[in-house]
Amino acid sequence: MKARVVVTLKPGVLDPQGQAIEGSLGGLGFTGVSAVRQGKIFDLEVDATDAEDARSKVDSMCTRLLANTVIENYSVEISE
Amino acid sequence: MKARVVVTLKPGVLDPQGQAIEGSLGGLGFTGVSAVRQGKIFDLEVDATDAEDARSKVDSMCTRLLANTVIENYSVEISE
Repeated sequence: MKARVVVTLKPGVLDPQGQAIEGSLGGLGFTGVSAVRQGKIFDLEVDATDAEDARSKVDSMCTRLLANTVIENYSVEISE
Repeated sequence: MKARVVVTLKPGVLDPQGQAIEGSLGGLGFTGVSAVRQGKIFDLEVDATDAEDARSKVDSMCTRLLANTVIENYSVEISE
């Protein structure tokens, strides 16, 4: 089964990378851009009996490795 | 309007970061995980008259700054 994990910073956590991107967009002439936040995405394939099983495995991977749950939120989508 | 940009490596482009994550997941005891690929996500707000206008602006940001279209694909979702 294919899984997509989206990891984003929690609201309120400073995002200097996002701020730098916002500044660069302004420098390139893109006006009216705000609230830029950068996150991560992981696409992976996992052996699982069904979607429920896959979700549970990927959820465990997120809490143990893929996301820092102190400062990040994550969401999991399972397909196929 | 809110926009979410997802940037992923094109198929065939080496992803050492993804390989490292796959190795780490194996080391943590997660078996049956394969094809791990890491990508980036950008959440931003853009001033636009309608969704069409927002999409066109964000598309331009992607080609000029957010994505390296030689090795990366991107997709844009507009909401609100």
